[in-house]
Amino acid sequence: MEGFDILNLFFVLLSAWGAGALIKRIGYPAILGELLIGIIIGPPLLGLVETSSTLTILSEAGVILLMAYIGMEINFKDLGKASWAGLLAAIGGFVVPFALGYYVVTLSGGTSVAGLFVGIAVGVTSLATKSRILVDLNLLDTRIAYVLMAGALFSDTLALIIFAGLSSFIDAGSVNMTEIVFISGKIILFFLFSTLFGLYLLPKLIKWLETKKIDNRTFYFTLLLLIVFGLSELAELVGLHGILGAFMAGLFVKDDLFNKKISKDISNVFHDVSVGFMAPIFFVTAGFHVSLDVFQTDLNLLLLILAAAFIGKIVGTIIFYLPSGYGWREGLAVGTGMNGRGAVEIVIAGIGLQKGVITQEIFSILVFMAILTTLSVPLFLTWSTNWLKKRGELVKQYSKKGYLILGANPLGLLLGEHLKASDKITFIDANKVVSEQAETKGFKCIHGNVLEETTLTEASAKDYRTFIAITENTEINLLASQLANDNFYVPEKYVVICPNENKEGAGVSLLGAASTLFASRTDIKPWIEKIQSSNYKEVQVKITKETTTRLWVKSQLQKDKNMLPLVIIDTNGNKRPFGYNDSLEVRESVIYIE
Amino acid sequence: MEGFDILNLFFVLLSAWGAGALIKRIGYPAILGELLIGIIIGPPLLGLVETSSTLTILSEAGVILLMAYIGMEINFKDLGKASWAGLLAAIGGFVVPFALGYYVVTLSGGTSVAGLFVGIAVGVTSLATKSRILVDLNLLDTRIAYVLMAGALFSDTLALIIFAGLSSFIDAGSVNMTEIVFISGKIILFFLFSTLFGLYLLPKLIKWLETKKIDNRTFYFTLLLLIVFGLSELAELVGLHGILGAFMAGLFVKDDLFNKKISKDISNVFHDVSVGFMAPIFFVTAGFHVSLDVFQTDLNLLLLILAAAFIGKIVGTIIFYLPSGYGWREGLAVGTGMNGRGAVEIVIAGIGLQKGVITQEIFSILVFMAILTTLSVPLFLTWSTNWLKKRGELVKQYSKKGYLILGANPLGLLLGEHLKASDKITFIDANKVVSEQAETKGFKCIHGNVLEETTLTEASAKDYRTFIAITENTEINLLASQLANDNFYVPEKYVVICPNENKEGAGVSLLGAASTLFASRTDIKPWIEKIQSSNYKEVQVKITKETTTRLWVKSQLQKDKNMLPLVIIDTNGNKRPFGYNDSLEVRESVIYIE
Repeated sequence: MEGFDILNLFFVLLSAWGAGALIKRIGYPAILGELLIGIIIGPPLLGLVETSSTLTILSEAGVILLMAYIGMEINFKDLGKASWAGLLAAIGGFVVPFALGYYVVTLSGGTSVAGLFVGIAVGVTSLATKSRILVDLNLLDTRIAYVLMAGALFSDTLALIIFAGLSSFIDAGSVNMTEIVFISGKIILFFLFSTLFGLYLLPKLIKWLETKKIDNRTFYFTLLLLIVFGLSELAELVGLHGILGAFMAGLFVKDDLFNKKISKDISNVFHDVSVGFMAPIFFVTAGFHVSLDVFQTDLNLLLLILAAAFIGKIVGTIIFYLPSGYGWREGLAVGTGMNGRGAVEIVIAGIGLQKGVITQEIFSILVFMAILTTLSVPLFLTWSTNWLKKRGELVKQYSKKGYLILGANPLGLLLGEHLKASDKITFIDANKVVSEQAETKGFKCIHGNVLEETTLTEASAKDYRTFIAITENTEINLLASQLANDNFYVPEKYVVICPNENKEGAGVSLLGAASTLFASRTDIKPWIEKIQSSNYKEVQVKITKETTTRLWVKSQLQKDKNMLPLVIIDTNGNKRPFGYNDSLEVRESVIYIE
Repeated sequence: MEGFDILNLFFVLLSAWGAGALIKRIGYPAILGELLIGIIIGPPLLGLVETSSTLTILSEAGVILLMAYIGMEINFKDLGKASWAGLLAAIGGFVVPFALGYYVVTLSGGTSVAGLFVGIAVGVTSLATKSRILVDLNLLDTRIAYVLMAGALFSDTLALIIFAGLSSFIDAGSVNMTEIVFISGKIILFFLFSTLFGLYLLPKLIKWLETKKIDNRTFYFTLLLLIVFGLSELAELVGLHGILGAFMAGLFVKDDLFNKKISKDISNVFHDVSVGFMAPIFFVTAGFHVSLDVFQTDLNLLLLILAAAFIGKIVGTIIFYLPSGYGWREGLAVGTGMNGRGAVEIVIAGIGLQKGVITQEIFSILVFMAILTTLSVPLFLTWSTNWLKKRGELVKQYSKKGYLILGANPLGLLLGEHLKASDKITFIDANKVVSEQAETKGFKCIHGNVLEETTLTEASAKDYRTFIAITENTEINLLASQLANDNFYVPEKYVVICPNENKEGAGVSLLGAASTLFASRTDIKPWIEKIQSSNYKEVQVKITKETTTRLWVKSQLQKDKNMLPLVIIDTNGNKRPFGYNDSLEVRESVIYIE
């Protein structure tokens, strides 16, 4: 097999995998490690590997698949629901650095086309590893987090549409009026056709195939590949770049296009093939093309572009954020959070280099800009949110509401009865009979395995504020609450921990920021039986002196060994679950059963 | 993106997908459609597409991933358990056509290296679309099916090992004693190292990574890619072909290497990337290299190689099958069933062409041979098994034994109590409490969702002869029994059908060869309640005149509306479930409950 260079491929993939895994351990996105290792092992530093046609072909296929995957991750409906403040931040964070980047390049003697490419590259936003950082900084229930996530939804779409518009004119070279009309006409036709295809024809085609009883995952996976490559080629034909067609194709893949299981599986395959195989080859080889000389030869331009990126993004966000009325300091925090650059920026810079519209020096500067801005996000975001916190201006936003309760057993239902006055409740249970019983009691109950993401998706977990895991299996409680937190960004979690669970066990270390429900390790089985046989009574006691839930439970257990605290009633009469990390104030009450 | 040829790729992938889907509809494997469409759209006929570096690189990566996937599908344990007769058939079906192919080529003036390549190519076996054809011909519970499946397990491994041994010496060119010793030494070291790595180091590495709480599918997917490419490169370094390393890497991926969910998902990704994306590009472009002129210029050689393939495979199988004592006619049927060639043959022929050891003419002949032999399988196998059937020599083999019962509800358990005297019983139930109750009654019970393949794998479904689906949900009963039949080759199935199920509904058309349990549509809910409250009695009646289960139920229901026939006791005292397509003989009895 001449021509296929396994050794090179192996070495690049190994480097990408190792560097990506390491950098993720310290909280940064894998792409940062991939770019850095490319600079290290490639021509810029050690020169151990060079690019080859195998690497080029796979990486270019990888970029197309990656753009399709990025499109698949964006949901039209979410765009519609995203907040006004997020849109403001996304626009401001794009327009201002775009203008600064454009002027830095053109005033330094660069072409206006190069200026446009650099402008787009500094304008792009990437929420560093999406919401991971928000989880790490414990920001999930703040308004900043909500704005950042809404902003991230807009940013890729915005950047790619602007890139599409510009790049088609860049390709045309000289621009006269007839040409502009002709090019615009082609582009409009492309968007009309692909939207018509994606929103009307494609769903009809899939439904028709399903009536033919085709439920083969691989068949649909290949069909999607065909749509991705087909729209990509069509975009090229009308003068747009192929990545835009791939992105559009991805946008049309909504959860309900196939049956749920197939949608999920296909999205996994796209993810693994792009993010786990081909796209890293692109980012590592992007590092190959970096020139370290720019630190000497073009230091001024480097500093100016960095300044355009940092100042433009942060100041631009602050200014455009003012109409939201949330204050400039919150705008600053949002700006620092949106300051990362990622895959889309490197892809755009790579296209500029390949088309020859930006020089290798500018390409190198853009790669360093991506690295430095991404590195800055956790530091700056920690600092700016701490500042808000100290000033008491870190606004919590309960856009997420309600309780998602795992376990519709009698104890879960009893807790649900108490909490339903304050907030909406949804149960999840793997047992069909139990689920149906919960529904006869007027609760919404999702029947399914909580450890499968589809179940939490069905429960719309991401709209909930609190996850309560109340099954007899500690490990399931912990894993489920972690899943809800990590993948659905449910900020609060209460978990039942069994007393026989080893303190050092692997499971309990997952507890993280979760609160132990009932504020102590509890074997819930006897309580479930008591409630089932109506052999219990509820007691409500007023708190007479300030204490913590932990201390309260301790003192109560000394008086009455057999009691289980359910909820706390605050001074406004609202109830909340009785968890470990909570304090009890005078005039609050506790309801317990015995 | 110069160099990356989306249009060509799109067109080839579209052709492969369409042709593959069409040919599967008429019962042939997708590869046949891919080869044919390659000949049609490529240079041999229409000349619409030519090969390009994009196609070459992707197809060669695809071959490596495909070989890894083929390796992943083979389970060492199954090889150990496979039958003696299957091994005989696999060896005979390889050795004889190999020798014939070798002599045809060398006696026609070809080189001995070309002879070896052709020999391997005609020796290879591919069970056309694996067991699909056995399901279609309703042969699953015959001894032939068992031998064929065992033979298929050996054949790829056998062919690749022999190919490895030969190709390393072919590469060496002239062969002297020192060289043979040196080459053999390197090969032995390769196998030693890779086996040591795959069986000892790799599982340890994974376990270690799991203790680090890494449970990221994509991380492990990339790791596996690294192992595949790494062993592939290592094989090349010792003078073996890279596909062998990839195949070895696949062999080491056993179900228990990762946790079950991750293993399943990764295997899906490998399947889709190879079979659904890259490998079809290889098979379509293989068609590009075919020369149609061979029908005129080399007709004699074509016919001789075809004869070597057909006669060699069938006669070879018959002869080597004789020691099994199952007779030459059964050997003939097995030979016709093993006469297909598939992916491995085309890959080997492609390597021969690429290395320049076989001419384009011989390559073309080998492609036509693959097409014609594969086409012959359903025809010849139908014919030969019908012949056996007419002679009363189509031996049923109950290598599969026992009942797999979906639904451990009281009715399922009652049926299990009756059947357990005759055969082993395993239950499957999604409800944990119900599963535990079944176990307290001494039954083995798997707790899990039957529609996930992992559950049926855990239940070792492929070792069972009969699947009984006895839940209240008709659709689940039908889907589960189809899954057991299609993917685990469970030959017999009994399914509970609810009376309110629409006769024309999509579900019921799945019924296929399944038998309706109780021989009529039954609402089992009231029966479950009766049994639960012990409010029923069992009645045993003798059959006094020959009838069918259907007629018996009809006449019984006229006398006593409220009865449910459970099992039939044959004249030897063995019990079997009471199903639709069964006849009742004099002196048999029926046990029913009322």
